[in-house]
Amino acid sequence: MSLKVALIGAGTIGTAWAVVFARAGCTVRVWDGDAGALERFPARVAAVFEALEGSAIAGLPGGASRITTHAALADAVGDVDWVQEQVKEDLAIKQEVLPRVEAAMRADAILATSTSGLSQAALASVLARPERFIVVHPLTPPFLLPVTEVVTHPGTSEATLAEAYRVMEAVGQKPIRVHGEISGFAMNRIQAAMLNEMVALVRDGVISPEDADTTLTHGFGLRWAVIGPFAGVDLNALGGIRQYMELFGYILNDVAKDRGAAKALTPAAVDKLEAGLRAQLPLTELPARQKRRDRAIAALRGHLEKAGRP
Amino acid sequence: MSLKVALIGAGTIGTAWAVVFARAGCTVRVWDGDAGALERFPARVAAVFEALEGSAIAGLPGGASRITTHAALADAVGDVDWVQEQVKEDLAIKQEVLPRVEAAMRADAILATSTSGLSQAALASVLARPERFIVVHPLTPPFLLPVTEVVTHPGTSEATLAEAYRVMEAVGQKPIRVHGEISGFAMNRIQAAMLNEMVALVRDGVISPEDADTTLTHGFGLRWAVIGPFAGVDLNALGGIRQYMELFGYILNDVAKDRGAAKALTPAAVDKLEAGLRAQLPLTELPARQKRRDRAIAALRGHLEKAGRP
Repeated sequence: MSLKVALIGAGTIGTAWAVVFARAGCTVRVWDGDAGALERFPARVAAVFEALEGSAIAGLPGGASRITTHAALADAVGDVDWVQEQVKEDLAIKQEVLPRVEAAMRADAILATSTSGLSQAALASVLARPERFIVVHPLTPPFLLPVTEVVTHPGTSEATLAEAYRVMEAVGQKPIRVHGEISGFAMNRIQAAMLNEMVALVRDGVISPEDADTTLTHGFGLRWAVIGPFAGVDLNALGGIRQYMELFGYILNDVAKDRGAAKALTPAAVDKLEAGLRAQLPLTELPARQKRRDRAIAALRGHLEKAGRP
Repeated sequence: MSLKVALIGAGTIGTAWAVVFARAGCTVRVWDGDAGALERFPARVAAVFEALEGSAIAGLPGGASRITTHAALADAVGDVDWVQEQVKEDLAIKQEVLPRVEAAMRADAILATSTSGLSQAALASVLARPERFIVVHPLTPPFLLPVTEVVTHPGTSEATLAEAYRVMEAVGQKPIRVHGEISGFAMNRIQAAMLNEMVALVRDGVISPEDADTTLTHGFGLRWAVIGPFAGVDLNALGGIRQYMELFGYILNDVAKDRGAAKALTPAAVDKLEAGLRAQLPLTELPARQKRRDRAIAALRGHLEKAGRP
C-alpha cells in the first residue's frame, strides 16, 4: 500500500511499527526528540528485518529502504497520511507532544496514539482536531502479533474510525474494536486476569511457574492459536456456549468467588455470548467445526514438533 | 510402551484416553456400566484414529486393535497395571464405583481418576489402598492437548506419584504437578479467570465476543503456543519478570481491583516468580531467547497461513 506514515517515538514500539508499515509498502518517516534514538533506529529496524527474512511475514522486498529518520518534526509529519505516536507512556508528556505533532500535520491526516491505556479523552482534550484522533494500540511486537485495539474517544469521527480499520487491515494487522474508557483496554486486561490467577496459584504453592506455563504451551495455547476461547468452549457442549456455561460456568463462578471478585457470568452476559457465537455459526454446524479444530491442532503439533520451541 | 491399562467409563474422556494409551502401544481394556456406551465405543475410537491419520500425533500403527471392551468389570481391570476412571463427575457415583474397581484390581496397580475437580481426599477416603490412588486430570481432548494435571491426596505414596509421571511421559502427555485441595485444580482455574474477564468485557459492551477471541487467535495464542505467559513476559523487560512486574504489574492490580478481587501480586509472589524463571534461564540469556521466540512465532504464522483456521 502506498500510504505515507510518520512515527513519533523511535523506541521499541516505534521500531516494530516501522517494520509493520514498511514491509506492507508504506513510506515511513520517523521522528524522536532524542537524537541518539534516531541514530540507533536504522540498525534496530535492520535487525528485525533480518530476523524475519525468509519467513511468511517478511513482507515486500526493500522494507528498510522505505524508512527515513528526521530530526525536525515538520519534516517527518508535514506530508503524511497517518501519524502513529509512541512517546513515553506518560499523560503529561503525550499531552505536550501530541499538539505539536498535530500542528505540523496536514489537516486531513489521522493522528493515532499507541498508548496502552492512558485516557483517550484526556489525550483528545488537548487537540485542535479531536475528530481525527484515535487510539491504535498493538500487542508487542506488532510485526509478529497482528491483533490491534482500535479505541475511540467521544469526539472521534466515524470516518476516522473507518480509516483506522482500512489502514490496519491493509498493513496486515487485525483490528478489534474496544468501546469506552477502561483501564488497560481489553487485550491487556484479558492477559492480566489470567496472570493474576497464575500468580496467585504460584504464590500459594499450588503450582510452579514452569508448570503454569506448560498449561499454555502444551494445552490452551495450542487451542487458542487456532480458535478463540469463546468459540472453543462453544464446541465443548452440544448446545454450544449457553450449555457450556450451564454445565461448567460454576468453575468461572468459583474462581471469581475464591478471589473475592464479583460474578462475571450473569444471565445477560450469557445472552450476549450466545447471540455473538450463534451469529458466527449455527448449532448444527458445530460438529463439523469441531473436526476442523481437531485437525488444525494436530497439524499445529506437527509444526511445533518440527520447528522446536524457543 | 507395553503397559496394560483399563478405562472405567466409555464416554468422551474414556474415548480420548483410549486413543492416548493405544497409540503409544498400550493394551487398553474398557469397561462401562452402560452396555450402549460400550457398544458405541469402537466406532467412536475409530473416528478419532481416522481424524489423526497421517498427522504427527497418529502414534504407532494398529492402535484400535489394542483396545477391547468388557461387560464384566473384573475382566477389564483384573490384570492391568493402570486404571483410569472417568465415570460421571459426581462424588457419590465415583465413591460407589471406585471401591468396586479397586477390589477387582491387582494390589500393585495404580488407580487414577480423571476428575476435573472433585475433592481427591473425599475420593481417597473410600478406598482400601489410598496410597495407590491419584488424580490424573487431562485437558479435553488429551490426544490433542497433552498437558495433564497430577494431583495427590495426603495419603498418595511417592512411588505412585513417580509412576504417574513415568506413565504419562511414556504415553506422550506433559504432566504438571498441582498441590493441595483447590476447586478446579490449576488448569481450569487459569482458563476460568481469563474467561471471567472476557465475559465481563462482553457483558459491559467493551468488546464483542468475536473480537475478544481475536485477541487470542491473532495475539496471545500465537505467543503462548510457543512460550508460556510467565516466560513470555520475562522476555518483555531487560530485567526479566521482576522488572516486568515493577513496570506493568499495575495492570494486574487494576484488573483485580476493578473486579473486586484481592491483589494477587504480592512481594512474596514476585520473589517466587523470579526464583522460578531465573532457575530456567539467567538474565544474560534473555535476548537470545527473545530472538528464538520471534523466529518461532514467525514460523508459526507461516504454518497457520498455509494450514488455515477452523
